[in-house]
Amino acid sequence: MITGDLFIASQRVQRADPGFRAVAAATGSAIEPSFSIATKADVAAACLAANGAFPAYRALPRESRARFLEAIADQIEGLGDGLIDRAMEESGLPRARLTGERGRTAGQLRLFATELRLGDYLRVRIDHAQPDRTPPKPELRMKMVPLGPVAVFGASNFPLAFSVAGGDTASALAAGCPVVVKAHPAHPGTSELVASAILAAAADTGMPDGVFSMVNGADNAIGAALVGDARIRAVGFTGSRSGGLALMRLVQSRPVPIPIYAEMSSINPVFLLPAALEARAPQLAQGFVGSLSLGAGQFCTNPGLVIAMAGSALDRFLATAAEALEGLPAQVMLTPAICRAYADGVARWNSNPVLQVVGKGQAPDCATAGQAALFCVSGQDLLADPSLADEVFGAASLVVRCADLDEMAAVAQHLEGQLTATMHFDQDDIALARTLLPSLELLAGRILANGWPTGVEVTDAQVHGGPFPATSDGRSTSVGTMAIERFVRPVAYQDLPIELLPADIGDSDLTPRRVDGRPSM
Amino acid sequence: MITGDLFIASQRVQRADPGFRAVAAATGSAIEPSFSIATKADVAAACLAANGAFPAYRALPRESRARFLEAIADQIEGLGDGLIDRAMEESGLPRARLTGERGRTAGQLRLFATELRLGDYLRVRIDHAQPDRTPPKPELRMKMVPLGPVAVFGASNFPLAFSVAGGDTASALAAGCPVVVKAHPAHPGTSELVASAILAAAADTGMPDGVFSMVNGADNAIGAALVGDARIRAVGFTGSRSGGLALMRLVQSRPVPIPIYAEMSSINPVFLLPAALEARAPQLAQGFVGSLSLGAGQFCTNPGLVIAMAGSALDRFLATAAEALEGLPAQVMLTPAICRAYADGVARWNSNPVLQVVGKGQAPDCATAGQAALFCVSGQDLLADPSLADEVFGAASLVVRCADLDEMAAVAQHLEGQLTATMHFDQDDIALARTLLPSLELLAGRILANGWPTGVEVTDAQVHGGPFPATSDGRSTSVGTMAIERFVRPVAYQDLPIELLPADIGDSDLTPRRVDGRPSM
Repeated sequence: MITGDLFIASQRVQRADPGFRAVAAATGSAIEPSFSIATKADVAAACLAANGAFPAYRALPRESRARFLEAIADQIEGLGDGLIDRAMEESGLPRARLTGERGRTAGQLRLFATELRLGDYLRVRIDHAQPDRTPPKPELRMKMVPLGPVAVFGASNFPLAFSVAGGDTASALAAGCPVVVKAHPAHPGTSELVASAILAAAADTGMPDGVFSMVNGADNAIGAALVGDARIRAVGFTGSRSGGLALMRLVQSRPVPIPIYAEMSSINPVFLLPAALEARAPQLAQGFVGSLSLGAGQFCTNPGLVIAMAGSALDRFLATAAEALEGLPAQVMLTPAICRAYADGVARWNSNPVLQVVGKGQAPDCATAGQAALFCVSGQDLLADPSLADEVFGAASLVVRCADLDEMAAVAQHLEGQLTATMHFDQDDIALARTLLPSLELLAGRILANGWPTGVEVTDAQVHGGPFPATSDGRSTSVGTMAIERFVRPVAYQDLPIELLPADIGDSDLTPRRVDGRPSM
Repeated sequence: MITGDLFIASQRVQRADPGFRAVAAATGSAIEPSFSIATKADVAAACLAANGAFPAYRALPRESRARFLEAIADQIEGLGDGLIDRAMEESGLPRARLTGERGRTAGQLRLFATELRLGDYLRVRIDHAQPDRTPPKPELRMKMVPLGPVAVFGASNFPLAFSVAGGDTASALAAGCPVVVKAHPAHPGTSELVASAILAAAADTGMPDGVFSMVNGADNAIGAALVGDARIRAVGFTGSRSGGLALMRLVQSRPVPIPIYAEMSSINPVFLLPAALEARAPQLAQGFVGSLSLGAGQFCTNPGLVIAMAGSALDRFLATAAEALEGLPAQVMLTPAICRAYADGVARWNSNPVLQVVGKGQAPDCATAGQAALFCVSGQDLLADPSLADEVFGAASLVVRCADLDEMAAVAQHLEGQLTATMHFDQDDIALARTLLPSLELLAGRILANGWPTGVEVTDAQVHGGPFPATSDGRSTSVGTMAIERFVRPVAYQDLPIELLPADIGDSDLTPRRVDGRPSM
């Protein structure tokens, strides 16, 4: 049962009205019950509890934290159809997608459990002493330690995999950091169900009180209080550029600045190289429209920009794309506000004289669904006004007709930082692809060959990150096992006797390590 | 011969007066010649050249960059006594220290060459494809790529090891990032000699023009122009808290924020646990005064705070320390300004009624030397006014007399972030040391047992970093091989055909790697 409570440590807390209600994405109508809005005192209490839990939580053996993560996965799966039903109602996303997302969420938690058992993320390094050297060389042992309580902001577009028990929470808990979640108001009921699963798992596995809390707020005040709390030591966020920039400013104005990992804005350029476009324009167009329209285009990795040489092959690509779009039903978007912002963005493109409409999806029959839209622009016009490439969140994309290869290269060099960059090429394009590749390495966190950027494997070598403004900190990834490294920092231990050595860095511990400068296992 | 030139890419550039002259640390008098002050256009030209060099430089095989670093080390050693003589005159540091520092500087460069050949820092990860999975799983290969041109600020207190070819420059060049150095005005002649060594090495090893530049400025304007340049992608700095904070603000106000690694302020607390203090107060006092007065106390890791239980053992420690200080000659400090700031800091402590003088070194016979000074304060007074623990850069330290163990623990918990934290303990102190250790892990980047924090091994497991305000980014180290990781970010390559795969991530490359989630070699 959904109660609308906040979760301050292991306590459910109810606040008097005014609360807020979830909104059904498809109809725009409110859903019961009312959700409590946290007070600043609630936020402070959650942070205090997180800080109180931190010493005990970080001291737990890695195996205990691994079992906690696995218990969370089990509990989430144990919520059954009720979780999927509520998430469907709140987000408008279809059942198959949310079922898959639940699997991904549980899979992420279990992957971090595996990572914990492996211990590679501790980056253990040992330099033996050389007592006979002049001066004597001390012994140094190094490992990563957790930063402290982490604030996690749930994302609107992944009600499960990037929200309450999503990638940020999983990686922070794995690292040994208690978590305080600010739930996204677009899916408060889903959030409550998942929070209750985390707390049940915490109780079952004996985790310290305060290892997890969740607060709600319908505006920005609660989030600001959370990242401003001195006990919070890092922030994870996925959302809009304006939201991410606001959080960055708040973090920078703290007396003690902290790391912030905000994943914000990306249009994920796709380069169609000439031979590939000549050989298979229709197939590329079909693949593109499929990627563009997936989940109503509401993915961080949605292909919002296609770059190709002007000519008959591109015309064929555009014709097929227009045709594919024509048959595409309008799709319910995550929230009425997101749908309005999308419609505004498309209207802005519609009224811009340098853009031409290539094609559109079917018109929506309600105010909560978005109509897919494809525009095109010349390379020259885009280079003259790079703001044309600002993200329109949803199933809208812009095709850039380049006059020549130099213009194509210039577009690659003038784009802002991206999560992904893609090239479609054939054997005859290899030399050109090789020329573009270095620019793409500077531009993006992930480079794809002959694929589409939607679909982000949760795996070891994944990078879901990229230079600003794709993220606030391009040195990190929010998907995949390396995400845990966002929430740790190195500590060196000099000449500690065996009886004082912390876990994992002793000679008999089984953690992967570098010894005297050489990898060793 | 020292000419006073700037180095814009491979060009020596002379600017008309007003220039500035180096000042002999011991006498305060100016030394010839006059050094050119860079214009903003010079800074822009250096950044443009660095950015121009970046594609070619980062594309070089790691072996080529390794040879460049080794050639720099050789060239610096080839400068012979002239370098040491000039550094002595400019810094007031003794010959033995500077000879050792030159060895460390060359050693660092060669260590990063070794690290480059090993390739561990690339963090290579490979996840094989599973084409039969539904949906098919793509292949992902991940490695670190360099960030781009790096701005390095020379430090006053290490004219060689943390200046023009110091740790920041060595690690950035190793990572594949061109470097623009803002030389410290306290040792411009030393800086010029080292810059000429780097450029000779660059020419000998065929490095691209612009891989290194060096600009001078006597005030903050040139540094501000440098970190504000859009082509600069990361900043390395070692210096004062106010200087570091100013650079942090400048970096944050850029349209595209970048990583900044500022090492700023640390008082390196030393805890003397009761049994150790009881057993060997005099030896501890001797060791402490030796560490405190080393290099006139001008080390980032100088022990500026000693915490112990009040009692007769502490009284014996203080008596021996006072005696050792009495025989200590005043030492020439790095610059007249640093010496004045030190004298002001000690005068502030002298006039503070809650502090008592324990002992002082010999009074200076000139205005450029600093007199060592030791004060004490009660734990209660320190906890009431944590600003008492603000760094006084030089050979001054504060002993905190704690009423009981709880007060000692409270001091550990209320200190700001530190580079190091030290415990001296005997077998009977082990339980107490174990209690304190978790606080110290949150406090500092390096924890020492029964040693002194001065002396920082340049090695694999070293962490010379720590939570704010010790550094601006406690996730990093500026000493040791992990320093290279400050200047890279991860990129994942999805389904790239073999002929497009970048260096180091192919199946036959010999880089250390994780394959399908498991470390492998």
